Amino acid sequence: MVLERSGWISFSACGEPFFIAGEVTDLQQLLARRPEQFEADGIEVRMHTEATAIDPDRRVVEALGPTGPASFEYDQLVYATGAAPIIPDIRDADADGVFTLRTLDDAAAIRAATGHITRAVVVGGGYIGIEVAEALLRRGVRTTIVTSGDTVMNRALDEDMGHLATDAIRSQGVEVHPGIRVRCLVDGGGAVIGVEADEDVLPADLVVIGVGAAPEVALAERAGVTIGPTGAIAVDDRQRTSVDGIWAAGDCAEARHVVSGLPVNTQLGTVANKQGRVAGINLGGGDATFPGVLGTAITRFAKTEISRTGLSERQATEAGIAHSVGTVESSTIAGYMTDTAPMMIKALCEQGTGRLLGAQIVGGPGAGKRIDTFAAAIWGGLGGHDLAMADLSYAPPFSGVWDPVMIAARRAADRALGIST
Amino acid sequence: MVLERSGWISFSACGEPFFIAGEVTDLQQLLARRPEQFEADGIEVRMHTEATAIDPDRRVVEALGPTGPASFEYDQLVYATGAAPIIPDIRDADADGVFTLRTLDDAAAIRAATGHITRAVVVGGGYIGIEVAEALLRRGVRTTIVTSGDTVMNRALDEDMGHLATDAIRSQGVEVHPGIRVRCLVDGGGAVIGVEADEDVLPADLVVIGVGAAPEVALAERAGVTIGPTGAIAVDDRQRTSVDGIWAAGDCAEARHVVSGLPVNTQLGTVANKQGRVAGINLGGGDATFPGVLGTAITRFAKTEISRTGLSERQATEAGIAHSVGTVESSTIAGYMTDTAPMMIKALCEQGTGRLLGAQIVGGPGAGKRIDTFAAAIWGGLGGHDLAMADLSYAPPFSGVWDPVMIAARRAADRALGIST
Repeated sequence: MVLERSGWISFSACGEPFFIAGEVTDLQQLLARRPEQFEADGIEVRMHTEATAIDPDRRVVEALGPTGPASFEYDQLVYATGAAPIIPDIRDADADGVFTLRTLDDAAAIRAATGHITRAVVVGGGYIGIEVAEALLRRGVRTTIVTSGDTVMNRALDEDMGHLATDAIRSQGVEVHPGIRVRCLVDGGGAVIGVEADEDVLPADLVVIGVGAAPEVALAERAGVTIGPTGAIAVDDRQRTSVDGIWAAGDCAEARHVVSGLPVNTQLGTVANKQGRVAGINLGGGDATFPGVLGTAITRFAKTEISRTGLSERQATEAGIAHSVGTVESSTIAGYMTDTAPMMIKALCEQGTGRLLGAQIVGGPGAGKRIDTFAAAIWGGLGGHDLAMADLSYAPPFSGVWDPVMIAARRAADRALGIST
Repeated sequence: MVLERSGWISFSACGEPFFIAGEVTDLQQLLARRPEQFEADGIEVRMHTEATAIDPDRRVVEALGPTGPASFEYDQLVYATGAAPIIPDIRDADADGVFTLRTLDDAAAIRAATGHITRAVVVGGGYIGIEVAEALLRRGVRTTIVTSGDTVMNRALDEDMGHLATDAIRSQGVEVHPGIRVRCLVDGGGAVIGVEADEDVLPADLVVIGVGAAPEVALAERAGVTIGPTGAIAVDDRQRTSVDGIWAAGDCAEARHVVSGLPVNTQLGTVANKQGRVAGINLGGGDATFPGVLGTAITRFAKTEISRTGLSERQATEAGIAHSVGTVESSTIAGYMTDTAPMMIKALCEQGTGRLLGAQIVGGPGAGKRIDTFAAAIWGGLGGHDLAMADLSYAPPFSGVWDPVMIAARRAADRALGIST
């Protein structure tokens, strides 16, 4: 049985910006599986039913449903509450015209609002922030991104790569104001009219706040489940929590970073899907393990693709891993082809061993998915020199004869091993 | 010093079809490095100078240059003669209007010929055959591919994937006649007018023969260099031949297949570049090894991308490796996005171990380069289940949340390990 607080289950949150943009016309298209399909598989779904307490000793969940309180006995419980958007504790953050983006209802509300506004401010320069900004741009809304970081995506990318991403967004006509803390929103009497950021007030008819999300752990915590250092639920590699009979998966749970070994809370759909599968197999009596994450992610702003995997320089430093960097400024495909576009690749290798630690890519069409080549290489424990001589594919419409992935890896490994080039 | 028989060095043979198509306007764009650049680096280049004999005892190369015979002493010799197009021993294969595609001069001749013809037949359905056919199509020439295989690309792809590639080519208006042996060409008295294939005579004003190339080993063989079972020069992993002081690299040399362990002669630019680099480092006193090949390759016909790596089913069977297959018929990006296109992925795993052996992909834009993810995974020795849970990137403009790469790998590994799904 599935208890779901909202009126939606099994939807693609990652598809919401494309519904706002108008590329996806119907919210139903974003449903991966409908309640009827779950029911047909013998899985009862209780919509509009919010769990309010878990008693792990009696193995009972208390809930509040559409017809009042109810309680449900369980043998095994999967805690998959996700994360909730963080709303900064600032004045007028609850004014009309101020949104976060999490649920399909949020997406519908933002899209509806774009019909009668001209200026939007997006607070936050992470994945959600820039994807929403692109969607608003595509709907003809004049859009400004305000971020506290030095660049957009400053948690995913190092500063050099973040600047490239910032420049790409600006080149499309979206203003980006980095290094700014929003002091408050401005309610014009009925609805938001601006964002007060440092010195300036940025006028806005619509504000989307995308400054991150906090794992929803309160219910689990009250049931005695151990919360990890990231603020998400600590789990083992079979998705077991500290409490017998309770499993956790998705944005509310931690995962182990494969390169650093540290617990992380990545809040990505790829991780949630895998962890859910592992939890499901195990509590059904099977045997599955979740191998951990690299923090691999990808996004796009207009034609610029942005992706990353493994450790950034900042993350490597935080994890105490000495590293060297190799960058290559090249092109997505052979330089003599008409569709060629710039591409920057940055690779990190561990100092002394040459082991690949991570990579970041910013470039034109075809650039972004190259991150999977790095991810697979790191997954296999390859060194930068291994990847530099790997048999990757080449034809002029797809890359240069030495794919820049290999060149970046070689440069990083050369430096990590003290080889002058 | 470099001895070069023709008037061109260091050019992108892979770019030639795009010159024929008109996308590349000037042959000079296909030069990677000009003779002057070599000279500036202290490397003397002798153009129009053909080596005629090698005396490995005296370490002398005899050659015929523009001003007559000459001989050159060497300490170390790199044998990098490439391969020569195979011309079938059939009547009128030397008629006017019949071409092969190897050198820039070949490309220029074919492009010039397209100006005054209407119907072309391409003999051969491999990479060159289909890339030339696409180029001719783009120049408005009615084009037919004749191949002895059951499908196009029948050496690179298994039959199921080859059919998809064949269908994609036909859908663009190019006729494909598979399973046909060309009996002879027909010279109309001055120029080719047709191709006699089985029952039919296919009319043609232009014929391009692309049925493969044979490594140019005669000179090396006469110098006592050992030729391997593939007909190319046997080399060790430092690119040394059997004769002291003679190294070999590129299309004329063998390489070890990383999965099967067998010697192969792949004739690909990626391999040639790497082997050349390894030979150069070693004979200069450095230390480099060539790790071998997977036979990774990629091509495109209109918007259909075709790629492969590792062993095909046929190759696995030939190598005596029991295997299982996983296929997934999916889409290049999220199904609700407007640019979504079909994509078929086939993965092979070793029976009993689940080790990844190879993969083949046919699909729309963004499909082809996914082969590098498989290549990196195979390079790292990953099992299909390792790749199935790897942290690959996802966003709706790039893939589904489970990238089909992972699904194909999981299915192949499940079957290889006898796991019912």
